[in-house]
Amino acid sequence: MPITPEQRDEIDRLRAVTATTRRATVPALEEILYQPLEVLDHGFVRVIDYMGDDAAVVQAARVSYGKGTKKVSEDAGLIKYLMRHRHSTPFEMCEIKFHVKLPIFVARQWIRHRTANVNEYSARYSILDREFYVPAPEQLGAQAVVNRQGRGDVLEGEEAAAVMRLLREDSERAYDHYEEMLNQREDGTVIDPSRQGLARELARMNLPLNYYTQWYWKVDLHNLLHFLSLRADAHAQYEIRVYADAMLDVVKRWVPAVYESFTEYRMGGAHLSRAGLDVVKRLLAGEPVTQEESGLSKREWRELMQQLGRSEG
Amino acid sequence: MPITPEQRDEIDRLRAVTATTRRATVPALEEILYQPLEVLDHGFVRVIDYMGDDAAVVQAARVSYGKGTKKVSEDAGLIKYLMRHRHSTPFEMCEIKFHVKLPIFVARQWIRHRTANVNEYSARYSILDREFYVPAPEQLGAQAVVNRQGRGDVLEGEEAAAVMRLLREDSERAYDHYEEMLNQREDGTVIDPSRQGLARELARMNLPLNYYTQWYWKVDLHNLLHFLSLRADAHAQYEIRVYADAMLDVVKRWVPAVYESFTEYRMGGAHLSRAGLDVVKRLLAGEPVTQEESGLSKREWRELMQQLGRSEG
Amino acid sequence: MPITPEQRDEIDRLRAVTATTRRATVPALEEILYQPLEVLDHGFVRVIDYMGDDAAVVQAARVSYGKGTKKVSEDAGLIKYLMRHRHSTPFEMCEIKFHVKLPIFVARQWIRHRTANVNEYSARYSILDREFYVPAPEQLGAQAVVNRQGRGDVLEGEEAAAVMRLLREDSERAYDHYEEMLNQREDGTVIDPSRQGLARELARMNLPLNYYTQWYWKVDLHNLLHFLSLRADAHAQYEIRVYADAMLDVVKRWVPAVYESFTEYRMGGAHLSRAGLDVVKRLLAGEPVTQEESGLSKREWRELMQQLGRSEG
Amino acid sequence: MPITPEQRDEIDRLRAVTATTRRATVPALEEILYQPLEVLDHGFVRVIDYMGDDAAVVQAARVSYGKGTKKVSEDAGLIKYLMRHRHSTPFEMCEIKFHVKLPIFVARQWIRHRTANVNEYSARYSILDREFYVPAPEQLGAQAVVNRQGRGDVLEGEEAAAVMRLLREDSERAYDHYEEMLNQREDGTVIDPSRQGLARELARMNLPLNYYTQWYWKVDLHNLLHFLSLRADAHAQYEIRVYADAMLDVVKRWVPAVYESFTEYRMGGAHLSRAGLDVVKRLLAGEPVTQEESGLSKREWRELMQQLGRSEG
Repeated sequence: MPITPEQRDEIDRLRAVTATTRRATVPALEEILYQPLEVLDHGFVRVIDYMGDDAAVVQAARVSYGKGTKKVSEDAGLIKYLMRHRHSTPFEMCEIKFHVKLPIFVARQWIRHRTANVNEYSARYSILDREFYVPAPEQLGAQAVVNRQGRGDVLEGEEAAAVMRLLREDSERAYDHYEEMLNQREDGTVIDPSRQGLARELARMNLPLNYYTQWYWKVDLHNLLHFLSLRADAHAQYEIRVYADAMLDVVKRWVPAVYESFTEYRMGGAHLSRAGLDVVKRLLAGEPVTQEESGLSKREWRELMQQLGRSEG
Repeated sequence: MPITPEQRDEIDRLRAVTATTRRATVPALEEILYQPLEVLDHGFVRVIDYMGDDAAVVQAARVSYGKGTKKVSEDAGLIKYLMRHRHSTPFEMCEIKFHVKLPIFVARQWIRHRTANVNEYSARYSILDREFYVPAPEQLGAQAVVNRQGRGDVLEGEEAAAVMRLLREDSERAYDHYEEMLNQREDGTVIDPSRQGLARELARMNLPLNYYTQWYWKVDLHNLLHFLSLRADAHAQYEIRVYADAMLDVVKRWVPAVYESFTEYRMGGAHLSRAGLDVVKRLLAGEPVTQEESGLSKREWRELMQQLGRSEG
Repeated sequence: MPITPEQRDEIDRLRAVTATTRRATVPALEEILYQPLEVLDHGFVRVIDYMGDDAAVVQAARVSYGKGTKKVSEDAGLIKYLMRHRHSTPFEMCEIKFHVKLPIFVARQWIRHRTANVNEYSARYSILDREFYVPAPEQLGAQAVVNRQGRGDVLEGEEAAAVMRLLREDSERAYDHYEEMLNQREDGTVIDPSRQGLARELARMNLPLNYYTQWYWKVDLHNLLHFLSLRADAHAQYEIRVYADAMLDVVKRWVPAVYESFTEYRMGGAHLSRAGLDVVKRLLAGEPVTQEESGLSKREWRELMQQLGRSEG
Repeated sequence: MPITPEQRDEIDRLRAVTATTRRATVPALEEILYQPLEVLDHGFVRVIDYMGDDAAVVQAARVSYGKGTKKVSEDAGLIKYLMRHRHSTPFEMCEIKFHVKLPIFVARQWIRHRTANVNEYSARYSILDREFYVPAPEQLGAQAVVNRQGRGDVLEGEEAAAVMRLLREDSERAYDHYEEMLNQREDGTVIDPSRQGLARELARMNLPLNYYTQWYWKVDLHNLLHFLSLRADAHAQYEIRVYADAMLDVVKRWVPAVYESFTEYRMGGAHLSRAGLDVVKRLLAGEPVTQEESGLSKREWRELMQQLGRSEG
């Protein structure tokens, strides 16, 4: 359970309050506003606020005085045009703010995307909760051999059990020692009044990277889509991909026309290299082409054939 | 008059539509939403959208599940603390979007602030309006002598009249020729059907820098305040300062507690150098100090004495 | 001639000085260091400084203690891999600094790329030179009809002559009046001692957008390549494309392996949409496909057929 | 010892190679190029490359064809002027690249500064070394009471000994289990050939935040100074401050005039709030002022009195 009953109450109180606004408003997104969308064993993504909608992209592209255009179909057409031609600035005119709870090693990948605003929970100032990530058994991938930065088959039997046990035990023990060094329990009680307790900014260094942290993360739609194109991708590590997937669903609710054009022109398409495009042209002309004389490496050839839905050319 | 009756109607239609939202909402800002706040002879600033309020700064600083804190006074106290200690990230959690109409030479200064999203009206794609800036007589400053990048006394008599005449005539003529090269009037009528008309992306180069352009400009509160601290300052050129002043009023409506702490700790204060601080300490200790042995240049000494409200020390 | 004899001398003096360094050094780039590469009628691009080379990309990718790898071929292979998989951070580890002289309307397009450092010549502080851009006759494109932001056929005869005349005359007159308002000639002589002269920050607003400005522009290699992919493209306006072309030549000298992979995977390839990829698959499978049932618009269909080198499918 | 003999050799080989360049070169920085400057128990900062020097700031500020100015004293004067008036863009024209080895919890603070280029060692791709940070005994601060995010007195006796023991033991055990999960020793030997070994991207999550990571970090001088003004400050955590201090020494070698003006106008000065400035004015006028009627909180009053070198006003 990623949130406590007290947090649930706070969220419900916030959701109960409504106001009248002249701003662009998206009912489908209002529906889930502030609600935690669960990710991994203790994580979540919550939409805290948003600015703009599909029409706001059009409105900005036209630098208009009123709304974008009159008709939804015209808006969708322009959005497709903008997406196809990489006119990114109109998409920057929408903004969204998330509250995310995530393991520290995921946070470390995430933060490399610099064009966003971040405010993280401070372990210098506050004490972290006893919450850590342990992969579900079906996620315990072995080291991949071909792709040095991926996972292969799922571990099984005793090896899997041992990994789970080590992760759990080390995480629990690290937190026990964290409390001991702080001289304070998670609930605030002092352990030994004769001791001072180590500074929080030091004690935290004993916690492993699977501990959960939290942050507010605010980003414009263009940069969010860029993030999603990299992190909702098959090459991304599973533990960040599930966050990206949850956010992709949010995008679909928020700006359906942008979502549509994004999946059409970015996620669903393919980028061909100069040599790859040449191979396609020759194939279409009925020429036989082999990897050896294609100008592509074996790996590139394999990837191209996969993209084209061919067995091995 | 910065907007046409048609534009006025579009704005009124947009203002008439309201919706219900769970988001943080600021009634004082809703009041002026979409309204053009007039600046210079044909320019304006309009708030198109906003995200967050004073409480959102606190909410982000605490990485909270609900609102920031219960009490307004606690929020204000934390905001002061954040401002004083340069904790900038919580202020980045509020965002605002403006539609601005401004002379091109002002746009060129403005755009140097890179941490914002901009979508400008395209003179490659569309034809610009016949609208240009001419300074009011009391703004016709002569070149300053001491400060090489500022204005001195106001020009008077025939010299002032000549400047006004030249600016107006050259601006009008440039637009006449712009139309002639385009082979098209402002209202779209073709001038000479036997001619083709120069491409818009080329014809525009004949227009002078006092012509008006427009853009959507979106920025987070932290970067907006940084912009205002530089541009609502006495060293800024008058023509950009009036835009900054209009936006400062917007900030006051939007996030009054942030505005309060901003004027207290940034705009209203003073930064002393190491040597300047040393002078203050010695003066407070009752020592006589002269510029010569202060370690300050004459100019720095003069500025320090002004800041301290002293004639000449 | 884009530079004066005095400027030529300054450059020669700078070029004559050499030093010994332990830094990565690129002889082919040193050859042209500080030299103006002429662009348009009065513009240029000069390389002022650079950091890194091909090996520095590899060195950063490996977070290595020494150089990247031992062999040039291995480096090139890794660079290709990084480019193909959009690993952008190693390319950010090279940096280059240019001095550019360019028409103001070009500068206004250029500056939209925000991830660079810019220091522009200040017309608040200094007086601009009497230098403006007039297109060569073969660049006087008419407004394109299909593509609203491009050029069509070249203007001819009297229409072309009239455009040239208007541009020249208005530019000359604007500068005459600029001097008159400043009460000062380009060479510094005062025109009428009984007048004060308008402030520079105001007088400049009379100059049209084809006047030249200058700036120092510093950017990392990743962001430079992104800039070039947009601005060395056929959709870019000619007047900025020629700058991009000049800089592309610089990249070729500086980091030849990066240049190679950039032209292979970015400039020379093609991005297919989901529907476009589907068309290719069906064609390869020997199915007949028409635009109508392809899911592509007429324009997208036309573009796809062009990319595939087919007449009309 | 932060580096191995093999790494020492790689560095020495790199240092032995010199080249001739026309670029701005700084002998005092060349002296330490590539050398690890030791920080904490296993960390370091190494300068890998740099662009520009003091004169390059001036050159950019003047948008000059040659060098900045002729005289060093004029350069220093202009640099002071730029620093005092917050003209930041000329300082952005110098760039520096570091290789840094640092504990993960320090890396997490550091990375919040977004205006830099970073390439970190990948624990998805490679296996981390058995190297972790344990504070020196004199750094084992107790939790501060007044300042919730700082350290108070140093722990002593048995409490200190216990902390050291826990940190060491947990770090060692975490690495033992990391190897066990990977089914591989630090030196690459397989532990049990019948097992597959967990993926690196998963196994790393067992390591605590005091483990060392490494990255290449490249930043312009303006943003470096901003980083240093926050992180070489007394409010920064000791473990990041020592890195900032090492880099401040590098700045002194690299751009001595910039360093001088930075310490004069940024590090060594004081920022007074509006109310604080008012107190100073009244004190200088000989008025008695008390905290109660000063408009300052107790804490602000105390800080102001400290800045002014007064006991308690």
